Amino acid sequence: MKDMIKKIDFIMELDKLKAILRKSKPVGLDRYENSAEHSWHVSLLVMTFSEDAPSKLDVLKVLKMILLHDIVEIDAGDAFLFDEKAREAAMEKERDAAKRIFGLLPAHLEKTFTNIWMEFEEGQTKEAQFAKAMDAAIPVLQNINNNGQSWIENGITLDQVLNNKRKVIEKEHPLLWEYIKEKLTKATYWSK
Amino acid sequence: MKDMIKKIDFIMELDKLKAILRKSKPVGLDRYENSAEHSWHVSLLVMTFSEDAPSKLDVLKVLKMILLHDIVEIDAGDAFLFDEKAREAAMEKERDAAKRIFGLLPAHLEKTFTNIWMEFEEGQTKEAQFAKAMDAAIPVLQNINNNGQSWIENGITLDQVLNNKRKVIEKEHPLLWEYIKEKLTKATYWSK
Repeated sequence: MKDMIKKIDFIMELDKLKAILRKSKPVGLDRYENSAEHSWHVSLLVMTFSEDAPSKLDVLKVLKMILLHDIVEIDAGDAFLFDEKAREAAMEKERDAAKRIFGLLPAHLEKTFTNIWMEFEEGQTKEAQFAKAMDAAIPVLQNINNNGQSWIENGITLDQVLNNKRKVIEKEHPLLWEYIKEKLTKATYWSK
Repeated sequence: MKDMIKKIDFIMELDKLKAILRKSKPVGLDRYENSAEHSWHVSLLVMTFSEDAPSKLDVLKVLKMILLHDIVEIDAGDAFLFDEKAREAAMEKERDAAKRIFGLLPAHLEKTFTNIWMEFEEGQTKEAQFAKAMDAAIPVLQNINNNGQSWIENGITLDQVLNNKRKVIEKEHPLLWEYIKEKLTKATYWSK
């Protein structure tokens, strides 16, 4: 029973991720999306696109990475991709957050979840690299269908988007990258 | 490229699930939760509790079921567990919704996703039964920590909750059921 109470404490803590807002709005909705619904959306992208990965993946591990990857934002907040200062400042906060939040769990699960989260953060394995590509692709697809909403609101340029996203997406899904590049270079919403 | 465009159309359609509201509020937030963030939350419950399942599970399949199970609500809406009329009326709408929404995908994925969704709906396999138990447990855990919010707002009695939830949860996780039963029978928010 003691271990189960710890698991329930962890699960209830997670409700807080539903209050962490990102810079993107879901297409058709006039509100910012939160990191919990975003994590669900990326999971579906993984389920739909993992068959195209450059090498055979442990899809269960990729899904677990995606489902866990934003939980640290409960303490650290969401750092916008293009805000380098905020992202650097977030790193230490995120490590502390992982310690506190995964630390709610029984020891064996704390270890498992922390390892999956760290593997994602380090981005060295094929699963982590594919997961990062899918995580990076979702807001791009939303912006393509939303007149560049989060980029325009935050003064992000076409070059910034292409440089930042290419690194993560191109190798993992060349065809998706080709599609994205074409859409973005043809878009007319960029400020000069 | 043609198959990929279909996949992207499906992914963008999914943003709409973020607008489908349930009867529960996330603990600490003064708003109803949507079915996308709920699906994420149930996935984490699966990741945390599947080690306790009565027999060894294909966890990847359970996660896929949870991630897909509410997508039909984009067309059919969320039918409250305790509203039997709404649930019956929803069944045909949900079948049509699955046809339309999974039909956005390339044929092989349409088939795969439809089969996973149907296996969940039919509830015959051990993966489907465990998935349904976890899906049923999340709003109970929220209500336990939220003064029975969705039950009180909708005039649901203790007996209704116990009868409906026991069927789904007890066999899959007896210890969790014991915990829930004790919390609910001790709660003082029930109307007489």
